[in-house]
Amino acid sequence: LSTVATARSSLKIGLVPADGIGREVIPAARLAIEALGSDIPKPQFVDLLAGFELFQRSGTALPDETVDALKECDCALFGAVSSPSRRVTGYSSPIVALRKILDLYANIRPVLSVAPTPDEKPKVDLIVVRENTECLYVKQEELKHTENGREARATRLITERASRRIGTMAFELAAARPRKHLTIIHKSNVLSVTDGLFRETVRSVPRLNEGRFDDVQIAEQLVDSAVYRLFREPQIYDVMVAPNLYGDILSDAAAALVGSLGLVPSVNAGDNFVMGEPVHGSAPDIEGKGIANPIASIRSAALMLRHLGYAAPADRLDKAVDEVVRQGTVLTPDLGGKSKTEEVVAEILKRI
Amino acid sequence: LSTVATARSSLKIGLVPADGIGREVIPAARLAIEALGSDIPKPQFVDLLAGFELFQRSGTALPDETVDALKECDCALFGAVSSPSRRVTGYSSPIVALRKILDLYANIRPVLSVAPTPDEKPKVDLIVVRENTECLYVKQEELKHTENGREARATRLITERASRRIGTMAFELAAARPRKHLTIIHKSNVLSVTDGLFRETVRSVPRLNEGRFDDVQIAEQLVDSAVYRLFREPQIYDVMVAPNLYGDILSDAAAALVGSLGLVPSVNAGDNFVMGEPVHGSAPDIEGKGIANPIASIRSAALMLRHLGYAAPADRLDKAVDEVVRQGTVLTPDLGGKSKTEEVVAEILKRI
Ligand SMILES: CC(C)[C@H](C(=O)O)[C@@H](O)C(=O)O
Ligand SMILES: CC(C)[C@H](C(=O)O)[C@@H](O)C(=O)O
Repeated sequence: LSTVATARSSLKIGLVPADGIGREVIPAARLAIEALGSDIPKPQFVDLLAGFELFQRSGTALPDETVDALKECDCALFGAVSSPSRRVTGYSSPIVALRKILDLYANIRPVLSVAPTPDEKPKVDLIVVRENTECLYVKQEELKHTENGREARATRLITERASRRIGTMAFELAAARPRKHLTIIHKSNVLSVTDGLFRETVRSVPRLNEGRFDDVQIAEQLVDSAVYRLFREPQIYDVMVAPNLYGDILSDAAAALVGSLGLVPSVNAGDNFVMGEPVHGSAPDIEGKGIANPIASIRSAALMLRHLGYAAPADRLDKAVDEVVRQGTVLTPDLGGKSKTEEVVAEILKRI
Repeated sequence: LSTVATARSSLKIGLVPADGIGREVIPAARLAIEALGSDIPKPQFVDLLAGFELFQRSGTALPDETVDALKECDCALFGAVSSPSRRVTGYSSPIVALRKILDLYANIRPVLSVAPTPDEKPKVDLIVVRENTECLYVKQEELKHTENGREARATRLITERASRRIGTMAFELAAARPRKHLTIIHKSNVLSVTDGLFRETVRSVPRLNEGRFDDVQIAEQLVDSAVYRLFREPQIYDVMVAPNLYGDILSDAAAALVGSLGLVPSVNAGDNFVMGEPVHGSAPDIEGKGIANPIASIRSAALMLRHLGYAAPADRLDKAVDEVVRQGTVLTPDLGGKSKTEEVVAEILKRI
């Protein structure tokens, strides 16, 4: 979806590290962007607050100032959020809220293994395109007290409009790749109305685009068997498009295939804004130990730049990361290495 | 959950092969049960109709006669159902309906790899305990036409009652296993009300059972990271308990770990009835070729018998299957073999 880079004299980048290792990996992405020098408009970073820890301190997980400031930025990077270990009144995930407020309707998650040499084909090379604003993430829930105990209900919303725009995004991505293959993920054997609408709407995208996507091959799979086949034969996938929750699960599953969640980047993209976000969480178990993998965060920065039209600088970041992974000597523990975050960052910076 | 076998002079077993390879693997389970001879009460098989193909012929996917006859049986075996490739008015999955009508509230799916020798520990040895009657499977969906196009909504129902009984079942299963470990799967960082209720209710089960489950260790995981970790470190799991849809996805994911969906059995269990069901689908791609793997179906029969209290005959079936898998020379193509269904069945029957 590389739009042509608009002429900018500077690039205003919001940084929202949020919780846990988010605060360790977002600074790494910042350093990587800075290392690009004059290849991109002069970056201007804006440090912003959000997260569960902030909520515990201040009662707000997503301050208005953060939202307002983001609206003034050209793009942003988001770290990770912690989840409360039990229900906390008034708390609601800031990342889910931001996706909605900024209308970042697509979560694009490329999952790519690094081949042993630059000339070989990677074993896993797919993109999960996840709808980012609806499904069960509308968070319309209610609790009733009945004679038989409590009953809770949540609404799963699927609209034609959101399915069409995510479908269009997925077709665009698929059309730009060599294999031009798109798998629609659903569970319409059970959810014939909601997933039926999703499937049918995505399928109708080529008809509405006058031949633009005629060369994209379409397949579909039920979400349960999609996960099964993802583990068994990942090579059958090129681009996958899925409603929000299935996309959440599928992208974690795909991450397992390439060795670590610490490698997998994403962008939350809308028509007017893009926010990079590593797929991993806040990882409270390793927080503060200095061993968080900075790669997903740096790759998310690359993806964000690519989305803004800065393809060559994005390539520079990706190539530097790939070389370090391929070399295999300076890696964090999640990849079987013994290095610290800062050592991996230094190794990557050297190559940018 | 082995209840003590009640004294029966015969065992009335409903057989519902339904669609596709269901019709190839259910007969295999029947032969395996017959081979048990006088180890179990004389089996009396009742052949019953259901499925999408039946719907296409007759307009009904689940005839009343099938439901009525099942209510007269001691237990049943269900094959698999095909899914229509587009929305079909009036069609609704018979397996989902049967689970509800017969109140088979638990779907128990043990996933076990076969170790190279009988004395070694299997690499994967876990049970997915899936709630079987609610979540999005209540199929309350509606479609609205709005100015912005169509909008579909589905209801996700989680009740305290259903969460408590599936939780109790899961604790019982965990307490009976050497590791006594239970992982609760949810996504309460997004669905704080529905998944919050599920999590909290399952957690409260030990308190209501006066010390009976005090030695069961409890863990929990968000569904996305549960799938990731299932793939990376399956050994962390012993028993997993999940709402319906997560359980559907997780059990397919776990099946990928042991080599084939064709190996994984399940029972749909309620307080008064049990129905065995291989986890695999109707597999239209291999239907009629005589190469469907009969093992999941035979293991489902074993699981059904075990659930009725016939532990020794169930062991005989499982042992015979394990020997054939371990030997590795007579296997269907899904396991890398070249044998036909009937050859695998013959090989298993020899060992019962
Ligand atoms: C933290 C959580 C709300 C979030 C999600 O479910 O979207 C995360 O899992 C992700 O994938 O970005
Ligand atoms: C066929 C389908 C309705 C069913 C389900 O989703 O429960 C199947 O996937 C299963 O796991 O038994």
